[in-house]
Amino acid sequence: MKIFVDKVMIDYRRFRSKDGDYVASIVARYSLTFLEDRNVISFAGGLPDPSTFPIDDLKRIAVEVLDSYGYDVLQYMPSRGISMYIKELIDFLYRVRGIKTSMDNVIVTTGSQQAIDIIARMYLDEGSYIAVEEPTYIAALNAFRARRPRFIGIPIDDDGMKTDILEEKLRELRSKGEKVNLLYTVPTAQNPSGVTLSIDRRKHLLELAEEYDFLIIEDDAYGLIIFDEDKYVPPLLSIDYSGRVIYVGSLSKVLTPGMRLGHIVAPREIIESLEPFKQIADLHTPAFTQYIAAIVLREGIVERNIPRIKSIYRLKRDAMLKAIEEHIIESAWWTKPIGGMFIWIKLNVEIDTEKLLQKAFSRGVIYVPGKGFYHNENGFDTMRLNFTYPTITEIGIGIEKLSKVIIEEINQ
Amino acid sequence: MKIFVDKVMIDYRRFRSKDGDYVASIVARYSLTFLEDRNVISFAGGLPDPSTFPIDDLKRIAVEVLDSYGYDVLQYMPSRGISMYIKELIDFLYRVRGIKTSMDNVIVTTGSQQAIDIIARMYLDEGSYIAVEEPTYIAALNAFRARRPRFIGIPIDDDGMKTDILEEKLRELRSKGEKVNLLYTVPTAQNPSGVTLSIDRRKHLLELAEEYDFLIIEDDAYGLIIFDEDKYVPPLLSIDYSGRVIYVGSLSKVLTPGMRLGHIVAPREIIESLEPFKQIADLHTPAFTQYIAAIVLREGIVERNIPRIKSIYRLKRDAMLKAIEEHIIESAWWTKPIGGMFIWIKLNVEIDTEKLLQKAFSRGVIYVPGKGFYHNENGFDTMRLNFTYPTITEIGIGIEKLSKVIIEEINQ
Repeated sequence: MKIFVDKVMIDYRRFRSKDGDYVASIVARYSLTFLEDRNVISFAGGLPDPSTFPIDDLKRIAVEVLDSYGYDVLQYMPSRGISMYIKELIDFLYRVRGIKTSMDNVIVTTGSQQAIDIIARMYLDEGSYIAVEEPTYIAALNAFRARRPRFIGIPIDDDGMKTDILEEKLRELRSKGEKVNLLYTVPTAQNPSGVTLSIDRRKHLLELAEEYDFLIIEDDAYGLIIFDEDKYVPPLLSIDYSGRVIYVGSLSKVLTPGMRLGHIVAPREIIESLEPFKQIADLHTPAFTQYIAAIVLREGIVERNIPRIKSIYRLKRDAMLKAIEEHIIESAWWTKPIGGMFIWIKLNVEIDTEKLLQKAFSRGVIYVPGKGFYHNENGFDTMRLNFTYPTITEIGIGIEKLSKVIIEEINQ
Repeated sequence: MKIFVDKVMIDYRRFRSKDGDYVASIVARYSLTFLEDRNVISFAGGLPDPSTFPIDDLKRIAVEVLDSYGYDVLQYMPSRGISMYIKELIDFLYRVRGIKTSMDNVIVTTGSQQAIDIIARMYLDEGSYIAVEEPTYIAALNAFRARRPRFIGIPIDDDGMKTDILEEKLRELRSKGEKVNLLYTVPTAQNPSGVTLSIDRRKHLLELAEEYDFLIIEDDAYGLIIFDEDKYVPPLLSIDYSGRVIYVGSLSKVLTPGMRLGHIVAPREIIESLEPFKQIADLHTPAFTQYIAAIVLREGIVERNIPRIKSIYRLKRDAMLKAIEEHIIESAWWTKPIGGMFIWIKLNVEIDTEKLLQKAFSRGVIYVPGKGFYHNENGFDTMRLNFTYPTITEIGIGIEKLSKVIIEEINQ
């Protein structure tokens, strides 16, 4: 078969936009790869345990929605999302997350990634300031990077983002006549670190948003999978009385990521101004998956599934923490997440985890080097470990392998 | 239920990016609305005839893919798209469109809208030049507008974009030391006008791209639904020997738009540089719809469906042309499309079709005023009529109603 494209050698780089150039140089390096090598134990992906997917329900409901709503399921639909799905989502968010909202305050997105991206396009200019946790979620960072803003990094500890340091930096900026426009946080069981912002810091953060006049993107990807329920903290959105929070949620961790169903809850004016960007981005989120999710929520399938997900993930987290304590304790600091999918390790020795990865891979275990999670590419001695995708047996074996690789590196 | 959001009155406009401000001011005005008022005859939407959706096949295949590939269907997947789907797509594009390509040259997008959007982000800067047809597709125009480029408008006639005028404008720009970076065209059964670029002009366009060094986005949304098969012209991509064409396609018009399945075919370097933008945009296109489409293509369902779609649309086009000839002939110029979904009308009298719409609506018929399809908001006396969604009876009645409204306006 003759190949029509790729016959000619043009250097296409000369056509690139500045954003395009930047994305090609930085983002491409820290892209997420979801493909897993089946021969290694992977702590790398951010993949849910596939045994939590309600396949039989989805099969039945896929047929049901085509029977009941066939033409609408397959036709062009409004950019804002399908009303039937938004209504179910509003009820669901109230029941499971205490979020009280209405039709005017919600837009459906193709995964929460698209939510973050369109918010960045609406509210970030080249050179404007965005505050992020250090470390923070790679793919959000990349969406921000595509806007070429200036980053303000806020370090974290076991209680999440250090809001006292945020306050200092805000004050410093103000003294220079500048300000932060947007702050992005994953306050609950953060990706990548697993830490959760304490209630006091949540309140402090909201006060700062009001005092220093910025908007907060609350990425609540893991808010529904908190295993230690005595440690529950409410989402920022539900304690925000000053209209500062743009809430981003998703069904990826409690139903299935493959359907790419995200949503934004925010003040009406913000939703209205995001709608044309949503239309620019993909006209609308596939109707088929929205209809399926509407029925799934209506039937309470997700709510029945959540306790099962939590108990599976709790066991896996415990297994990973135990293995880390046994094998890695002397050479690292690590987080103890109350939920979510990740444990964060900072080595107490000067080891470049990016370089170490090759060796780890050759021994049959992989993770994500921490560098990509830093806006400034710091964190060379950190790594993210996912505990939800591997089995409990794999967790034990994998951590032991990883430990050996680290110890060998230290002793070299 | 207490509403947590919308309690506080903040003017959120102050947080907007420049792109955001521009999108809010311009794009929002020309947004597509897919919701139809069921009591009027609508020539407004760009909706396929729902009787062309193979619902029973989709029901069967939805169950089949969950049975055969359940976990993968529901898990995170690669940004580039699912290999099984891309393979089927490559074979399909060769069989039905004569496009010869390979795995390295394809990326799956969430509808062709996303394809256009990520290409614009990669290759358009604020102030850079993009050439477009006058008129051109609203939602593409909006994606470009979000980059705030400078537009070069090229008028059309029955043979599509007037490439001689394009050449003049390119020469003029060159004499000023400037150049066009990107050209966007819907060369085949264009949206909104229905015209098709002649083979001679296709060749001329490709020569100009080489001579004046720009890239061409070929939006082939309607390439598979050409009814007058003796008038077939090959896609630009298949006669491009200089690597200038970025081909954008979609299953929206031959399978279902609600699934949002688009694709880009382009030189490998372009696909590689678009991939991080695709990841930023939504991580990946939903896996469920990709798996379904893979089976649909493999089973030849789309290829069997296309002749049926063509024969339905041919009848509808003929009915609309006939009705226009009978009722509107004296007061307008209109196009005679060889395929696609639209007829374009330019009134021979000074009537603002945007103002006329209210009156038409009150008489039970709607269309899209042409203004939104012009980068410079010209075309006040034009309108787009869709012939694929209404029934043949509705087409007759609707055109008669529309004719009366126009004649009344003239006689006023």
